[in-house]
Amino acid sequence: MQIGMIGLGRMGANMARRLIQGGHRCVVFDTSPMAVKQMTEEAAIGATSLADLVAKLEQPRAIWMMVPAAFVDQLITDLLPHLEPGDILVNGGNSYYVDTQRTARELAARKIHYIDCGTSGGVLGLERGYSLMIGGPDQAVKRLDPVFRTLAPGVGSIPATLGRDKLDGTAEQGYLHCGPSGAGHFVKMVHNGIEYGLMAAYAEGMNILKHANVGKDAHAADAETTPLRNPEAFQFDLNVRDIAEVWRRGSVVSSWLLDLTAAALTRDPTLATFEGRVSDSGEGRWTIKTAIDAGVPTPVLSTALYSRFNSRGEAEFADKLLSAMRFEFGGHIEKSAGK
Amino acid sequence: MQIGMIGLGRMGANMARRLIQGGHRCVVFDTSPMAVKQMTEEAAIGATSLADLVAKLEQPRAIWMMVPAAFVDQLITDLLPHLEPGDILVNGGNSYYVDTQRTARELAARKIHYIDCGTSGGVLGLERGYSLMIGGPDQAVKRLDPVFRTLAPGVGSIPATLGRDKLDGTAEQGYLHCGPSGAGHFVKMVHNGIEYGLMAAYAEGMNILKHANVGKDAHAADAETTPLRNPEAFQFDLNVRDIAEVWRRGSVVSSWLLDLTAAALTRDPTLATFEGRVSDSGEGRWTIKTAIDAGVPTPVLSTALYSRFNSRGEAEFADKLLSAMRFEFGGHIEKSAGK
Amino acid sequence: MQIGMIGLGRMGANMARRLIQGGHRCVVFDTSPMAVKQMTEEAAIGATSLADLVAKLEQPRAIWMMVPAAFVDQLITDLLPHLEPGDILVNGGNSYYVDTQRTARELAARKIHYIDCGTSGGVLGLERGYSLMIGGPDQAVKRLDPVFRTLAPGVGSIPATLGRDKLDGTAEQGYLHCGPSGAGHFVKMVHNGIEYGLMAAYAEGMNILKHANVGKDAHAADAETTPLRNPEAFQFDLNVRDIAEVWRRGSVVSSWLLDLTAAALTRDPTLATFEGRVSDSGEGRWTIKTAIDAGVPTPVLSTALYSRFNSRGEAEFADKLLSAMRFEFGGHIEKSAGK
Amino acid sequence: MQIGMIGLGRMGANMARRLIQGGHRCVVFDTSPMAVKQMTEEAAIGATSLADLVAKLEQPRAIWMMVPAAFVDQLITDLLPHLEPGDILVNGGNSYYVDTQRTARELAARKIHYIDCGTSGGVLGLERGYSLMIGGPDQAVKRLDPVFRTLAPGVGSIPATLGRDKLDGTAEQGYLHCGPSGAGHFVKMVHNGIEYGLMAAYAEGMNILKHANVGKDAHAADAETTPLRNPEAFQFDLNVRDIAEVWRRGSVVSSWLLDLTAAALTRDPTLATFEGRVSDSGEGRWTIKTAIDAGVPTPVLSTALYSRFNSRGEAEFADKLLSAMRFEFGGHIEKSAGK
Repeated sequence: MQIGMIGLGRMGANMARRLIQGGHRCVVFDTSPMAVKQMTEEAAIGATSLADLVAKLEQPRAIWMMVPAAFVDQLITDLLPHLEPGDILVNGGNSYYVDTQRTARELAARKIHYIDCGTSGGVLGLERGYSLMIGGPDQAVKRLDPVFRTLAPGVGSIPATLGRDKLDGTAEQGYLHCGPSGAGHFVKMVHNGIEYGLMAAYAEGMNILKHANVGKDAHAADAETTPLRNPEAFQFDLNVRDIAEVWRRGSVVSSWLLDLTAAALTRDPTLATFEGRVSDSGEGRWTIKTAIDAGVPTPVLSTALYSRFNSRGEAEFADKLLSAMRFEFGGHIEKSAGK
Repeated sequence: MQIGMIGLGRMGANMARRLIQGGHRCVVFDTSPMAVKQMTEEAAIGATSLADLVAKLEQPRAIWMMVPAAFVDQLITDLLPHLEPGDILVNGGNSYYVDTQRTARELAARKIHYIDCGTSGGVLGLERGYSLMIGGPDQAVKRLDPVFRTLAPGVGSIPATLGRDKLDGTAEQGYLHCGPSGAGHFVKMVHNGIEYGLMAAYAEGMNILKHANVGKDAHAADAETTPLRNPEAFQFDLNVRDIAEVWRRGSVVSSWLLDLTAAALTRDPTLATFEGRVSDSGEGRWTIKTAIDAGVPTPVLSTALYSRFNSRGEAEFADKLLSAMRFEFGGHIEKSAGK
Repeated sequence: MQIGMIGLGRMGANMARRLIQGGHRCVVFDTSPMAVKQMTEEAAIGATSLADLVAKLEQPRAIWMMVPAAFVDQLITDLLPHLEPGDILVNGGNSYYVDTQRTARELAARKIHYIDCGTSGGVLGLERGYSLMIGGPDQAVKRLDPVFRTLAPGVGSIPATLGRDKLDGTAEQGYLHCGPSGAGHFVKMVHNGIEYGLMAAYAEGMNILKHANVGKDAHAADAETTPLRNPEAFQFDLNVRDIAEVWRRGSVVSSWLLDLTAAALTRDPTLATFEGRVSDSGEGRWTIKTAIDAGVPTPVLSTALYSRFNSRGEAEFADKLLSAMRFEFGGHIEKSAGK
Repeated sequence: MQIGMIGLGRMGANMARRLIQGGHRCVVFDTSPMAVKQMTEEAAIGATSLADLVAKLEQPRAIWMMVPAAFVDQLITDLLPHLEPGDILVNGGNSYYVDTQRTARELAARKIHYIDCGTSGGVLGLERGYSLMIGGPDQAVKRLDPVFRTLAPGVGSIPATLGRDKLDGTAEQGYLHCGPSGAGHFVKMVHNGIEYGLMAAYAEGMNILKHANVGKDAHAADAETTPLRNPEAFQFDLNVRDIAEVWRRGSVVSSWLLDLTAAALTRDPTLATFEGRVSDSGEGRWTIKTAIDAGVPTPVLSTALYSRFNSRGEAEFADKLLSAMRFEFGGHIEKSAGK
């Protein structure tokens, strides 16, 4: 079928490619004319403006937005004058599901169908397909089924879950209509919250492996430093690159994130090109706020989020206060780095 | 080659099977004669005692122990009178690596080679192969290479890590000599610590999904209960079984543990057969203690461990004390379950 | 001066008493006529309705609301028709500061001054005085200074902070104008967030003391149970009641919450009257959500909040899923309680 | 009575002073002759060596060691040749209680009584007295009762705990015989573990207050940065110094650590003299390891410990790995500081 794609960044461009390869006709737009030009060379129909994109689509239209959450509201405001009842607008990015619910209500009043589609797959999605978590009105979601089916990985070579053959539905194809408006972004939000937790688990574990040789260091013995009680137990120079690789093979912790870990460590086992300032882009935060509203304990996911805040220095005042308290009650002088 | 296998539980029996299928000759022993009998029907050579097992093995012997950590010391004590210099003893279970280091020193004094082999793969290892993390003296590890190679999954159909082709070693085969005695159990310990963190991340996330409909409940409005500020945002009845399935397909959180989650939820989406009392069997604890000794922050892995303690009611006195304090400062009366 | 007090629960009634003892005239109202009657016997002027209360106050009026956050909006709606420009409305409860900011804007449009006053002190505040964290417009806050001064503890016998004598302000008196509307509730919110953290720290520590004799129990030795490695180190039957008392005397952890802990344990060292289902009433949740918005890492405060969720069984599905995963990968059968 | 004091650092010197002021005779030794000289000017009897100290004490001797845990073993080894059956050795520092148990067994074999005395009070203990948590054999502890009574704060002006008058014991005096050898250090260890948790709770909360004006900053709007959804709610410039002070006055979070926080912020509200590298000196680590052995969930105390590790940069490799994974799956480029 025909679909418009707005936003040709890392995700949007590859999704357009996968749709075109799947036989769909894509009209594409991006604020960067270069990005549009690139896609027209790959069989997309380029648009010069939002108005132009809308004009090039047959009614009722289907338009997929693939832009950062911060830009969604403005984009919808700009698109709205050009849309007509019956058109479908898909938000394939990571908006906060509460915003999505509000937007869906506003658009429904104009008879425009708003679909939220959480999209996972990263830069490898072009080849592997994208896992799609969809929310919105039944009819509109059904209308776009061919698009979802193409973007999703399909059954492929992934082994079936035992007992799954007795069940209906599209989950095995890699896309799922999760519920009414907001349900797709809700599920995607939690998905990303889990992702933070998984990543932190690997990172903490790898950090232990990296420190398995601390017994080789000489340590100061004073009242400010905890002596390492058993230096003989910390004499291992472990090869984290090979360990990540061996865990990919049959171990309980094998996963796609571990594949990526192995890839990163194979590129450079010291990770020297990174400073260790880890961004977070919203979904982790929303997950925790949602869990707190619902009264659900999420210590692991929260702590994983805070590790990222910490990595960017946001604990600085708290840490200073800890040192200040220690000075007040015990006269402890702070030890500088390297001492 | 020929190898003895002691311990024919879930892991040991399947490992013996995989070895036999790989062309090795296995002499097996278990405290349960039934377990031995079963294996002899599958082409293993049964032994009636430890002495019998040792007698049936050619020198220099190779004996693989696959028993719970709590029984390892006694088993070695019982085996030792029968062993001779040059024999190899493999501990394939999850012993604390500090114990392993000690035992290796003691056995080395008798010229018996002690190999620690962390073994991951679970009940599916027979088919998929086992991920092996090996510690111990070079010559002994090299001697058992055929055994490790058979137990490991091999390259199989798992995509290669980019750049890996320029590197040597056995990691891609699914087994790795990590370092001297204890290194295998050290790496396996951290592996399991990570496993706890991954499992908790999924469990917490799924629990949020399960609570996505809390806005449908009527809640008491009193000073003891936080009112749900936005019940309209919690009206989703999500299908956790299908969500687990769709995440298996191309998403960033896909993993073997997610496969198992999908399998469990397909079996019964309510998980009604479980009480939620989660055991822990040592490696998670050792991981945290090791991290603390090394000064490595592991908030996610620790919190995951504590969730298990909590699930078994170990926070009870702490919780009572919190309620008691609230009563003291605010006269707050505890709300019973269901009120 | 004259002031109206609405809400004669544990906090409101005692605050009215302290104001009357301080020479102020209090007009009081509560939905319970009994509560009003009780206060009239203690020199308060009773009101039979909100309208009656407003009528009995001289203009410009000052009315203090001391009701649960969930009832504030409705109360203001009911009061509003009776109020006139220049009147001051104080919210002395624990409203979410974002709500407070909104309400202040709405009331300011009607020239009614809204003051948010976070109030700490618990049931002992009548005697000790209340710590007051105040937000709102300067003139209105200044007008109520006599009220704040009476409610606050004053300098009393608490030792001065070194260097404080060179500083101005009311902080030493126990009340502080923290900033514009919402600032008082913001500071009180964080105060309560800290309170959760402090309480959890004591509770966890006391729980360790309680378990100092676990080495006396016989434990099962199987693959599902981590054996206690060093039972000889866990043979202490500690007297938690006396330990709380001794810590009150000169130790670094002395605090008012510790005083309460000692009181609770003196009442009953087993805390048998409590089930351990710990309520939370909003501020802890708001603290975490605020911290997340601001990007501030708060792992301790968050974890303390989750301990309360956990105590009420909210982790149940997560725990079941952990057991389910363990069954899937390792065939581990859950151990029931008592086994 | 007469007592020897070894170690005249911040703690030991003040304890000797308090003992002398209480009418005891103190023979003192330190590796620094200056420290000894200083104390002799304050009525202590100086010793020039361990042998000299022992010689100057009447039998059966009582010697109090106040040195860092790392130096205790060597000190005992050096003292031992000079001691005789019936002598008492007090370890007033923070040794790991497991070491204490071992040492007590070794000394008991020589009929030397070993007492472990956890000592809290910090630099203010000279004036306020020290909270003492004592472990060891009954007779020896009873013999030193006059010393403990002098060091402890006594009942003083601290309000009695309700119901305490019906109970016996020394807890109200500020010292407590907690149990056999190790019990004192066990209780002190948990005390310090709690202290870490309390400190972290204050530090995290104060850090939120410090960030209450983040809405005034302009933030980048891109896919790598979570936009602040509600900048209007983060416009407070809070005076953390005055807030700490007002909380000291009647609030639920009042404590000695809060007094110190107020003092530190009064000295310098920006804490500019601190880098925020927070030391930990053993007891926090031992607390967590003990809790894990006993199966007691301690998420708050653990997380507080990890905050200190984090403050010293120990998460660096973990953070780099998180950025590396984000690059692998999403092509996310790390944002440097200040961007």
